[in-house]
Amino acid sequence: MASTSSLTLSQALQAQAISYHAFRQSPDNRISFSPHSFPAFFGLKSMAPRSATSSRRLPTRQLRQVRAAVVETLDATAEASLVEKSINTIRFLAIDAVEKANSGHPGLPMGCAPMGHILYDEVMRYNPKNPYWFNRDRFVLSAGHGCMLQYALLHLAGYDSVQEEDLKNFRQWGSRTPGHPENFETSGVEVTTEKHLAARYNKPDIDIVDHYTYVILGDGCQMEGISNEACSLAGHWGLGKLIALYDDNHISIDGDTDIAFTEDVDKRFEALGWHVIWVKNGNTGYDDIRAAIKEAKVVKDKPTLIKVTTTIGFGSPNKANSYSVHGSALGAKEVDATRKNLGWPYEPLHVPEDVKKHWSRHIPDGAALEAEWNAKFAEYEKKYKEEAAELKSIITGELPVGWEKALPTYTPESPPVATRNLSQTCLNALAKVLPGFIGGSADLSSANMTIIKMFGDFQKDTPEERNFRFGVREHGMGAICNGIALHSPGMIPYCATIFVFTDYMRAAIRISALCEAGVIYVMTHDSICIGEDGPTHQPIEHLASFRAMPNILMLRPADGNETAGAYKAAILNKKRPSILALSRHKLPHLPGSSIEGVEKGGYIISDNSSSNNPDVILIGTGSELEIAARAADELRKEGRGVRVVSLVSWELFDEQSDAYKESVFPAAVSARVSIEAGSTFGWEKIVGSAGKAIGIDHFGASAPSARLFKEFGITVEAVIAAAKEVSYSQ
Amino acid sequence: MASTSSLTLSQALQAQAISYHAFRQSPDNRISFSPHSFPAFFGLKSMAPRSATSSRRLPTRQLRQVRAAVVETLDATAEASLVEKSINTIRFLAIDAVEKANSGHPGLPMGCAPMGHILYDEVMRYNPKNPYWFNRDRFVLSAGHGCMLQYALLHLAGYDSVQEEDLKNFRQWGSRTPGHPENFETSGVEVTTEKHLAARYNKPDIDIVDHYTYVILGDGCQMEGISNEACSLAGHWGLGKLIALYDDNHISIDGDTDIAFTEDVDKRFEALGWHVIWVKNGNTGYDDIRAAIKEAKVVKDKPTLIKVTTTIGFGSPNKANSYSVHGSALGAKEVDATRKNLGWPYEPLHVPEDVKKHWSRHIPDGAALEAEWNAKFAEYEKKYKEEAAELKSIITGELPVGWEKALPTYTPESPPVATRNLSQTCLNALAKVLPGFIGGSADLSSANMTIIKMFGDFQKDTPEERNFRFGVREHGMGAICNGIALHSPGMIPYCATIFVFTDYMRAAIRISALCEAGVIYVMTHDSICIGEDGPTHQPIEHLASFRAMPNILMLRPADGNETAGAYKAAILNKKRPSILALSRHKLPHLPGSSIEGVEKGGYIISDNSSSNNPDVILIGTGSELEIAARAADELRKEGRGVRVVSLVSWELFDEQSDAYKESVFPAAVSARVSIEAGSTFGWEKIVGSAGKAIGIDHFGASAPSARLFKEFGITVEAVIAAAKEVSYSQ
Repeated sequence: MASTSSLTLSQALQAQAISYHAFRQSPDNRISFSPHSFPAFFGLKSMAPRSATSSRRLPTRQLRQVRAAVVETLDATAEASLVEKSINTIRFLAIDAVEKANSGHPGLPMGCAPMGHILYDEVMRYNPKNPYWFNRDRFVLSAGHGCMLQYALLHLAGYDSVQEEDLKNFRQWGSRTPGHPENFETSGVEVTTEKHLAARYNKPDIDIVDHYTYVILGDGCQMEGISNEACSLAGHWGLGKLIALYDDNHISIDGDTDIAFTEDVDKRFEALGWHVIWVKNGNTGYDDIRAAIKEAKVVKDKPTLIKVTTTIGFGSPNKANSYSVHGSALGAKEVDATRKNLGWPYEPLHVPEDVKKHWSRHIPDGAALEAEWNAKFAEYEKKYKEEAAELKSIITGELPVGWEKALPTYTPESPPVATRNLSQTCLNALAKVLPGFIGGSADLSSANMTIIKMFGDFQKDTPEERNFRFGVREHGMGAICNGIALHSPGMIPYCATIFVFTDYMRAAIRISALCEAGVIYVMTHDSICIGEDGPTHQPIEHLASFRAMPNILMLRPADGNETAGAYKAAILNKKRPSILALSRHKLPHLPGSSIEGVEKGGYIISDNSSSNNPDVILIGTGSELEIAARAADELRKEGRGVRVVSLVSWELFDEQSDAYKESVFPAAVSARVSIEAGSTFGWEKIVGSAGKAIGIDHFGASAPSARLFKEFGITVEAVIAAAKEVSYSQ
Repeated sequence: MASTSSLTLSQALQAQAISYHAFRQSPDNRISFSPHSFPAFFGLKSMAPRSATSSRRLPTRQLRQVRAAVVETLDATAEASLVEKSINTIRFLAIDAVEKANSGHPGLPMGCAPMGHILYDEVMRYNPKNPYWFNRDRFVLSAGHGCMLQYALLHLAGYDSVQEEDLKNFRQWGSRTPGHPENFETSGVEVTTEKHLAARYNKPDIDIVDHYTYVILGDGCQMEGISNEACSLAGHWGLGKLIALYDDNHISIDGDTDIAFTEDVDKRFEALGWHVIWVKNGNTGYDDIRAAIKEAKVVKDKPTLIKVTTTIGFGSPNKANSYSVHGSALGAKEVDATRKNLGWPYEPLHVPEDVKKHWSRHIPDGAALEAEWNAKFAEYEKKYKEEAAELKSIITGELPVGWEKALPTYTPESPPVATRNLSQTCLNALAKVLPGFIGGSADLSSANMTIIKMFGDFQKDTPEERNFRFGVREHGMGAICNGIALHSPGMIPYCATIFVFTDYMRAAIRISALCEAGVIYVMTHDSICIGEDGPTHQPIEHLASFRAMPNILMLRPADGNETAGAYKAAILNKKRPSILALSRHKLPHLPGSSIEGVEKGGYIISDNSSSNNPDVILIGTGSELEIAARAADELRKEGRGVRVVSLVSWELFDEQSDAYKESVFPAAVSARVSIEAGSTFGWEKIVGSAGKAIGIDHFGASAPSARLFKEFGITVEAVIAAAKEVSYSQ
């Protein structure tokens, strides 16, 4: 799978993930994909026979030894000179690939090669031939502009994804080594999941979930507000299996960090509840790095920050320790000087035989680790059948048969309810049937209506629970949910705030879209319906802004059936995130609304005309669909043929056949009126130049919401007037 | 001015500012406007005669005494029981207004009334009858959901903006007391400006710029990443006149902060370089609050955080210290119980006579303070004529005559240059003629091309300089620029990063738009032109997303003249922010481009047809205008009548007359093709259903940019083919 080199796969891989801070670091060049970011899981089912075979070949005792050997390299490693040589191999793979592309970031890989080597060669447990192995340790290159570090490590470790050809095609069209790491910032996130799943599925006799998350982050990461949000939560939750190596090199793009960043990072992390270790010589103090990681693993109730002081561009005699080595190729002359300085006689992109041989053990070792785990899982399955089945569904992402029957349905006689409350009913129904369903709100759970009543809070001492309390940290919340979604295909995270605050987390939402992380964004108070809170709280342009974003479902359900339909679409669209825009105020259940309709994105809820030729088409979304329906009632009393269309998701509607689209919006009917309590931007596409879009193209105001709807003309009367205007003009 | 009660003014006030964290706190209810947020300045010019009169009436010695008296209330204040009564007045104004609106946040005002009283009655220097007085102390209610605290204080202090009627109309349509404070989060920001202006204009004998910024912030503010960004910079810059009172009440909307926020805030602020003081009893320890503020003022090289431990909803016997008092009215029964508990016999919204009398001194005192300052300014003006004129232009916002002549112009013969470089030329030209022009980049100055060469870096020890080094902190950067823009009408801040990173600072940009803060956002690498950095760095939906946002200018210039035109529009539009989207790659100077054209938003750069009836209209923006122009050349060779339109700013074009619009896009010509390297979302409005929009509706990829333009079909050939298609179909 990962060894195919088709453009399609390559693009899919590119789209999978992002090292978030990484690409914050320079506008000009970088990438990498790390195993943990592959969303597809070539599941237990297909692996099982192989594991069975392996475990027949490798009896348990032998497996234990393999693992022990891997772990003990922490103390007693390969011959010192070979380590040095391996580290220089990593450095020159980066230097040469960047040089060939004449684009990229050599500085970080040159400075971080020692910690990279120690992590991938000595510390981490993974199987190069199955990057999707569930129990692998995770690695996140937060400072991902230095992606050549990770490409080099994946290459040495024997991953099919980064072969020699890929290194040569660094940052080129169609390559599998694009300019920025297609991972994403997940400090604390995968570990969170690990902690949660471990708490739910580990047994006194079998630790079936048992892996670490390692992160390399840089000065730029430290400056971004989101990293403080995420690290504050990681400290609060006591994520003991999160080990972050901070590449303290004192250089950012604009020069020495002294110009903008003079805080005491160690002290800040201590304040956030982290264990902090300082490795003063990260360039050559290999044993110090090893000892620090060892110490970090001993601290089980706190995440650990290892501040590793390094020299950016280590080895370059004229450019080391300067911003010039951050984001540009060294240049032929300096590459030569660096070769001389580090005593490196080899051709570009060459891996010396002894280094190759040294690293070659990771393929059999990794297979053995996975086989051992598979054997353990087989044992677990025998003893704990139910838990094993559940965990398997989390690992594979297979949804339980008939899950969608848990979703509620409604009739026009059901009492009016706000869609935010209808959403809560759906969340609680889904939590019962989907073992990987988990989430929470950014300190607005009682407004967003997101509490799962059958579960308690996920906290340091109750990690098996499923209600997250993210605090007022929207951006961190989104990033954490991305991490959860990409940890295992069966994890389905949701997160919530009020719709206008998507502005605070837009970068995380875009990463969901780019990574194909099926996060569900529960966004309530989706218009001026928020009322007295005023214009700061009233979304206007937000629906339009997400409709313009690639690979995301923007859903705005109108009532009970549509809310259920929106959740069905969200769960089924695992490869794209969904945003549900929900009302604060009560809405009636409309005749004609349906789950099936939502799945088509746009559909007719009522029509008194025939031959697909109404006098006018009224189009609404969410809370304004009711207004369209009421206007239609009035117009029909006057003898007009009126169709009402719910356009709950533009993206899903766009994907329907031309015939279906024509059946909803016949080309011959240009008399169209849309109503939506938000920007009209983009609605010309639907209503055409002969139609009329009713909306709000200015900021809102502070007053009770009914008053605002009236003052801003989001009314039945306005729809009726517009309908008459556009049909007369025909 | 502020005393008029017209709806228009009220709405203008509402739109002016936001307490950023404030409205993060609850989705259901709040507002306030503080003096510093009024963008209009009823300048020195009109004040001067008044000052002259005043200073005739009050000789200098007497003025000194007035100020001394204000300051010394820190130590020797009014009778203790009166203070208590004043504090309870504040509490009940908040309780009663929220109760009347049945909407709002009583908890914070009840808990923070003591610190509010001390700040407004004893510490701060302001003039209630001129909220725009330049040298006033600034107050920012970061935890602005508690806006009734500020409304009550403004009311007591005698501001015309909050009269009894306004308190009764809290959160109602058309009121001047909307549901959230229309200020904005500016921790460190106003002080920054203060520090900068003080460094530029103060003289050994005259401190003409000399004011403090006070902030009240809450637990929610502390959790948001942006506050760490801003506070890290405030510490780095050593903003000694920033004093932040942290309302440490342990409650957020979802309950006790223990569920999500257990970090050591004091220690974190120490790590960020702040001076930290803890007032353990913020409920009744008035002297401790006074002493803390006094201590904070002594520390001149660091900002100070005063952690004031309070009880949210202090005084409410059954709801104090619980989340239920955060964002809902107390309810009649609990209001009664609170009245009983605090011994408050008065009618709703009543200010007892002795309290009224006590506060009444602020009107004469404030006038005296301003008069004193005006006298000082007159002296300053005599001695330092040039500096005084410059400072006056910063205070009034009046642009120097002929400033726009500094902007460069180009001819088609000028060598091709990337618009980011053309932008740098403009920035440097403007810095020479606009004394309030100031800004920088989020660690990308060499990519964004934003360095003003004639100035050094704004740093702790060089605050008179004008190049800001924001570090990798986009959100904080945007908020800081909002603060600078609103500090004084003549301050014109710009800030820069790559266009896709607007996602990190979108909330700040929206606040610029809502606050009418004329910040200039310099956004380079505005499309797939960023190339090898890959899809994480390539904006797609961003142009559309800002075109949908109210009150913002989205400008995408195509060459030298258009870049100059974009800056001209940005400087002139002081009441709305501008975003300049700029290219990474070189672009030719196109025949027909002009500064005047940009001011119209859209204009014809070339046309070989007559009678306003071309065969086809080609529309481009920014770097793709060249592609449209080249396609036109080819089509004209084949004998077609082709018009090329630059649509550099949709907003400015929308504001033109119908006649002008018809002269550019005649209704009769439906053969229209647009080309823009971004989402086509919204382009139907321009090209109509018979036209064609060429763009990119998916994520980008990592490769050299020329390859990407080709692979994604952003080419001359594609335009020619589309032009033929749409003209045949006519």
